[in-house]
Formats: sequence, C-alpha cells, structure tokens
Amino acid sequence: MKKLINAPDQAVADALRGVEAAHGDRVRVTFDPYTIVRTDAPVSGKVGLVSGGGSGHEPMHGGYVGPGMLDAACPGEVFTSPTPDQMYEATKAVDGGAGVVHIVKNYTGDVLNFEMAADLAKGDGIEVETVLTNDDVAVEDSLYTAGRRGVGVTVLVEKIAGGAADDGKSLQEVAEIGRRVNSQGRSMGMALTACITPASGNPSFELGDDEVEIGIGIHGEPGRFRESIGPASQIAERLMTPILEDLPFASGDRVLAFVNGMGGTPLLELYIMYAEVAKIAADHGLQIERNLIGNYITSLEMQGCSITLLKLDDELLHYWDAPVNTPGLRWGA
Amino acid sequence: MKKLINAPDQAVADALRGVEAAHGDRVRVTFDPYTIVRTDAPVSGKVGLVSGGGSGHEPMHGGYVGPGMLDAACPGEVFTSPTPDQMYEATKAVDGGAGVVHIVKNYTGDVLNFEMAADLAKGDGIEVETVLTNDDVAVEDSLYTAGRRGVGVTVLVEKIAGGAADDGKSLQEVAEIGRRVNSQGRSMGMALTACITPASGNPSFELGDDEVEIGIGIHGEPGRFRESIGPASQIAERLMTPILEDLPFASGDRVLAFVNGMGGTPLLELYIMYAEVAKIAADHGLQIERNLIGNYITSLEMQGCSITLLKLDDELLHYWDAPVNTPGLRWGA
Repeated sequence: MKKLINAPDQAVADALRGVEAAHGDRVRVTFDPYTIVRTDAPVSGKVGLVSGGGSGHEPMHGGYVGPGMLDAACPGEVFTSPTPDQMYEATKAVDGGAGVVHIVKNYTGDVLNFEMAADLAKGDGIEVETVLTNDDVAVEDSLYTAGRRGVGVTVLVEKIAGGAADDGKSLQEVAEIGRRVNSQGRSMGMALTACITPASGNPSFELGDDEVEIGIGIHGEPGRFRESIGPASQIAERLMTPILEDLPFASGDRVLAFVNGMGGTPLLELYIMYAEVAKIAADHGLQIERNLIGNYITSLEMQGCSITLLKLDDELLHYWDAPVNTPGLRWGA
Repeated sequence: MKKLINAPDQAVADALRGVEAAHGDRVRVTFDPYTIVRTDAPVSGKVGLVSGGGSGHEPMHGGYVGPGMLDAACPGEVFTSPTPDQMYEATKAVDGGAGVVHIVKNYTGDVLNFEMAADLAKGDGIEVETVLTNDDVAVEDSLYTAGRRGVGVTVLVEKIAGGAADDGKSLQEVAEIGRRVNSQGRSMGMALTACITPASGNPSFELGDDEVEIGIGIHGEPGRFRESIGPASQIAERLMTPILEDLPFASGDRVLAFVNGMGGTPLLELYIMYAEVAKIAADHGLQIERNLIGNYITSLEMQGCSITLLKLDDELLHYWDAPVNTPGLRWGA
C-alpha cells in the first residue's frame, strides 16, 4: 500500500488537521468527536443542515460546509459510519432555533447513528427532520444497506436544500425540498479498479485486467455484473438505461446531469463520459439544464464514475443556482 | 489498459465534445484545429490570454477558459504539444485590439510552437507577449525541456494575469505580472505511480511496490531520486526543502500554498499533505495567506502530488482574489 499518510490510524485526524489549517477562517474543526462546523454557526433563525458519513468520499461531506450548503459535517473513519455523539454535537452547534435537517445516505450504520443523534437532540428540544438519500438504482439491499444505497444525489440534496435554508425556508420546507431532490434523482456507478482503505492495506475486491464492474457501490459493494471493458459509449448506456427507466425520465423532462469521478479517473475521461451522457439524454428528449462534472463523491483512489440525473423544476433549479461558498463547490460568492 | 474512452486516437476529440456539450454556453470548441475559446471573445480593449499544451493535465488548460482567467486554450493530443496553427487561430480569435499574452510551460515543443504562432500573429499586426513558466526546482533540463519545467505555477499565472487583464491592464503590464508570478513561484512534485497514455497503453515508467519518485515531471519525466515511501511528513519535507531554499523564501514572506493532486490521489491525502506543508511553512516563519488544494494540473491517473509556493505581494493577492468563472476555478461570479 502506497499512500500519502503518516499512519493508517491517523489518516482521518491528519486530514482534518489539513482542513483546519486550510479553511480555519470558515470552519471550526473539533477532534473529540470529529466535526466540521461553519465558524458563523448557529445562524439565528436559519434551518441548520448536518450531514456525515464515512471518510474517503471527499470532498463529500466536509468540503461542502459553508454558506449555501451544509452547516456541519461529521466524518467517520474511512468507510465507517460516524458515531451518534458526532451528529449530536454538530446538531447542537448549528441549531439557530429553526431546527436542523439531517441528510443521511442510506447505509445501515449511518441511519442508526443519525437516528440516535436525532433522538438525543430532540430530547434537548431541538427539532430535527431527516432526509434519507437512496438514489442508487443498481441494486436493492447491499453489503451495508437495506433498500437502495445513497450516492450522487446526496451532493445535489446538500446544495439545493442548503440554498433553501439560506433563503429562510422553514424546517418542513427545507426537508421537503431535500426529499424531492432525492425522489426525483437516480444514480448508478461503475468501477475500473478497486480502492484500498488505509486500515486494510488491501483492495476491497479484485477485478480482472480487462474487467469493469457495473453498478458498484461507493465502498466497493458489489454491483449488477462484471464484463470486459467496452467503449465509453457502451459504459454510458449501461448506466443511463437503468437510470432512465427507473424514475422513469420522460421526453421533455428538464434535468441536471452529473458525471462524478470515483477519485482516480482523469477529468479527460469524465468529459468523454459526459459527451456520451449528453447524447443519450438528447436521444431520449431530455433537456439538460445544468451539469456537474468532476470528483464530488469519491471512493478514495477508485477508478470509475457514476452518473446521476435529477429531474428539475423551477424551485430546484433556483436553489441549485443560488450562491454557494464551500471548498468543494463554489459560485456566486 | 482500462480507460473510459471510445478509442485511443479519439480520446481528446471525444473529451472536447464533452466540453462543448457541458460548457457550450461559455466556450466555443473548434476541432480543426483544436481550440477552446470564450464565446464572448474577443473582448474589445482587453488583453487576450492564450495558453495550451498537451492534454492529460485537465482541468489545465481548457478548464480555465472564462472570465477572469484565459480567453482561449489549445489542447494538444495527450502529452503532446499543440501545433502552431492552434495557437495562431486562438490568438486571432481573442485579440480585442490590446494584444495577446501567451502563457507557455517550458517544454521544448510548446515553446517552439508558441513562438511560431506568435510570429504568424505578429505578421497580422497582433501584438504578442510570452510568459514562460519554469517553476519546477526538481531538475535542470529534462526529457522534453531545456532549463526547468513549467508546472504548478502555470495555474497561478493564468489566474492572476487573467485578473489583471480583466482589470484593464495593458499588454506589458499583464505580461509583467505573469512573469512576476513565475519568478516568485517554485514547485516540486512526486509520484506514487506512473500513468498510462491512451496511445501507448503502457505505464510511462515503473516504480517498485514501496517506491516513490521525488521530483517527478508531469509527463513522468525522471525526478531527483527514488526511495521507499515514508510518512507524509517526510514526503512534504522532501518537496518543501528544495522549494524553500531555491527562491529562497524567507521568514515573514506572505505566500500562497498550493497542494496539487496528480490526478489519481484522493483529496483526503492531499489534505494530509497540506497539514504537513502548513507546519513546515510555519516553522520557517512563512505566512500562508491563501491556499489551493486539489487536482488542478494533473498527469492523467498518476498518483502523487506537487507543492507550489508563491510569494505574494498586494497586487498578486488582489488579482488572485478577483472573481473568476471557469469550469475549473470559480469564485465571486
């Protein structure tokens, strides 16, 4: 295992030291337990947004803390759920009296631990609503999940719900908008290679020299099938067809198209994939109104990509376009 | 070789189709020859900025075309210099009557081909100034370079000179600012793995299972030495010491610290490296005023990183902070 780390068991803490050194003007980092919180939190009267999950998916979630997006993130160890005390502390830190939304990817550990944190916070009189993301059409149930996994749409929920919270929407309204993004979004991913967690030192799975896995999860959970690698056009078709059929997306729909890199794939290849996605979308009569291309929800150094399509309406588009100022996503500010 | 491509010889053209599909509202893409040009070019009275080089370093340069940064980029085939007609066409497309600055990384092919393009443009009555970047302290002369290689500082030149051009500075002033950034910036990189160009299908060099190469170039050109991988703190020291000694940077200097990913390294690791860089900088009395952490000048899927330090003054800081609106770098717009 070759990694830019000091020691496997210090990787997350050391990275958080980097976040503190780099972004200490905008976020406070705590180490016991791990949280990343906006320096100006709580914002009085604004709904607070908290997300979290295992590390190794950066910039998600810590890179999305800032005006227009999250108020706090709770990073677990690599590919390991954060503990309830992290989300409890973060929830208290960001509650400005208008309640707090928890954005939770559908992995069993995350769901349970966020639930416990919400119960603790409610015991303190803080209103909490949970938005669960489960947009991965690849498989029902998985290694760490009952039901569908939460993947790319999580980034879009964090941005759009963050915009709504900034705009002064109520707890119920922000939660409803977040749930709408999840319900109108679908994703699927694929991998060319596995990744290696610092703790294990070994690849999470093995793929043949010419093999790809279609429908992979962001922790290397099994997908739908493996096959010999084909051209980008075929890989795009393998991902887009289940996505399009699932919602289903229909001719005339306005969409946001998101081509996400798993961490180890060059941007050159992601743009090749985007060209194929745009072609398939056009063939189905979809109108791509916005796009996002790059490494936004990753799996350490895994090579591969995922595609997310989100059906837009005027409100979602409005909050997507709203200013955001985070290390991982920034515009208009 | 497993890549998200349709065919090795179509990779750059297909990626440019992706750029056109994704960013056609802000850039025009031409395919014969390859150029990426702002849709609003030429901007009357504004100095035009053109850069270019082999593909495979994305988002550099095509991802930096837009208000506040480049007016045009000329992508060659992967790791291959663009041809003079590309830079000649781009120069004509962006000349708004105030002249054009060519930002050229110091690789022999790039230098020669930009020179030829500048001569052609001058023949048409367009004033051209060239800013050469050669910030890599690792080695003198290299596989494709006489003198030092141009690496990370190129991104900073494009941003800061772009800000100056937007502010209405003259051709001479914009070129002077660009040259100042280069003269006050130093970089050095390292690799954990090689990368594979689509055309060759094989790694550009071989590294042992526990080996890293210190001082690597962005095309895999040999560095200073190889050694067994040590902790991140040691790797940071290996890169920072030559950088600090070269300018030299002195206690009290205000700097921009840039930790760049080579393409295949997780952001988690880049933040670990940043924590080490910040510590070393503090030990030397440097004041880090700004930072940039992520994949900005890459080598396809190579794993590794580079560090760039830029000594700031008020003017460089002002133009670094100025609004920029490109796919690869965006704030304040």
